[in-house]
Amino acid sequence: MGEPMANRLISAGFALTVWNRSPHKTAALLEQGAHTAPSARAAVVHADVVITMLSNGPAVSELLEMGGVADALKPGTLFVDMSSVPPHSARAHASFLQARGISALDAPVSGGVVGACEGSLAIMVGGDETAFLRAAPIFAALGRATRVGPAGSGALAKLANQMIVGITIGAVAEALLLAQAGGADPAAVRAAIRGGFAESRVLELHGARMLARNFTPGAQATTQLKDMNSALQAAHEAGLQLPLLQQTHDLFLALTEHGGAGLDHSALLVELERLNGLQ
Amino acid sequence: MGEPMANRLISAGFALTVWNRSPHKTAALLEQGAHTAPSARAAVVHADVVITMLSNGPAVSELLEMGGVADALKPGTLFVDMSSVPPHSARAHASFLQARGISALDAPVSGGVVGACEGSLAIMVGGDETAFLRAAPIFAALGRATRVGPAGSGALAKLANQMIVGITIGAVAEALLLAQAGGADPAAVRAAIRGGFAESRVLELHGARMLARNFTPGAQATTQLKDMNSALQAAHEAGLQLPLLQQTHDLFLALTEHGGAGLDHSALLVELERLNGLQ
Repeated sequence: MGEPMANRLISAGFALTVWNRSPHKTAALLEQGAHTAPSARAAVVHADVVITMLSNGPAVSELLEMGGVADALKPGTLFVDMSSVPPHSARAHASFLQARGISALDAPVSGGVVGACEGSLAIMVGGDETAFLRAAPIFAALGRATRVGPAGSGALAKLANQMIVGITIGAVAEALLLAQAGGADPAAVRAAIRGGFAESRVLELHGARMLARNFTPGAQATTQLKDMNSALQAAHEAGLQLPLLQQTHDLFLALTEHGGAGLDHSALLVELERLNGLQ
Repeated sequence: MGEPMANRLISAGFALTVWNRSPHKTAALLEQGAHTAPSARAAVVHADVVITMLSNGPAVSELLEMGGVADALKPGTLFVDMSSVPPHSARAHASFLQARGISALDAPVSGGVVGACEGSLAIMVGGDETAFLRAAPIFAALGRATRVGPAGSGALAKLANQMIVGITIGAVAEALLLAQAGGADPAAVRAAIRGGFAESRVLELHGARMLARNFTPGAQATTQLKDMNSALQAAHEAGLQLPLLQQTHDLFLALTEHGGAGLDHSALLVELERLNGLQ
């Protein structure tokens, strides 16, 4: 995700210094006009705005603390974490930085590599309004940004997005399974209900994958499970019971335990088939 | 639903004889050029094609048997039941009629009164291909028809549609509840995730109702519960466990038990709030 997003920023005229743990991953960006740096610390030391796009919360914490990035940031820098991290991590990073005079936004995205290349990402932003306005020209080069609340809210919105996706995958899988088991043609049933109240991007995209039994990821079941876990943790912190989230989490957990971790998340259908002795 | 559908058929040039238990309901159709009949039996006795649009399976059974409609149909008549009935009722009606030389289709619709007026209903059709082709010019005046399998399959497809709608309502309600409890602005979260992988007609329509707390039906929770019950029964007949369907059924049951039977089905949010002590 980082590379196409950086490309969009270069094309929009921003001066970029890039760093990646694996230096070959930045080679193409140097040709596009980015500067490079020998360390994360060196990359951020003169920056007005720092953007991170890492694999999870601990990776961001490690970079900030062990990697010396927090110490290297000059006061007044804006730190924008576009990684998908749990809300409690996003809040912890924001407090840690704010104590050093650094503004922070959590701004995870949805839309995948295609959205990153097109500059059509949905960007869910948590943090204060001033920082959001400061980041607006950057976000405009990457997609459609919406401020959804204080620090941690962007991360929470991403989880809300992921839980709707996961539960809707379960809904479509159960419906197609019932159609087939009851003697209807599941492909025809899906075609018949497209465009009505049951319509969704999941019915369109993941429904097509289920019918084709194309479970090459896409988004892996193990990533969906990680998001369902984070959502459950956020619900627990907020004192909430969310029964459909819990049930869908349990199904994704069973899918990964039964060898489906690396399959696309639409393979929840396979777990429902196994549960019903249809495998 | 029956009246706007009959209007579409008259406009398309079909000669119509109409009957309703409450005669005043057919008055406007007579002005449009429909004929009327003093009984259901009298309405069908000369018909080539008979269409029923009734409230449930028992109403169709009663009309066919006690109402004398089955006895009055001439052999070779095509019987099209567009009511929403359980698959086992649709199959029973089809066998009962087939034994008398009558072809039958189960052809429930989705799209509501608006879809009926516009002729844009989704029509899910179970029955044999010959009967489907015979009904095609009629369906074309009413919406988009898809044959999904043998007798009972149309009814099953309608249940598949309804279970996706019900579970997706639960997904959106849980996500908005988590967003709010976690300190984000749920309206902004919904706006941020619109158009991405979480997008659905439910996020658009029912999500807007939840945020506005507008639970005037629309489609009543009690009707959604009836559909979830029928889907569970169909799953049971097919030997299937469908955990998200079961969980969502239980939530709609609790909603109706707690006074929400007459609210819109998007009021599942209210039941989730109650479950979490937020009412």
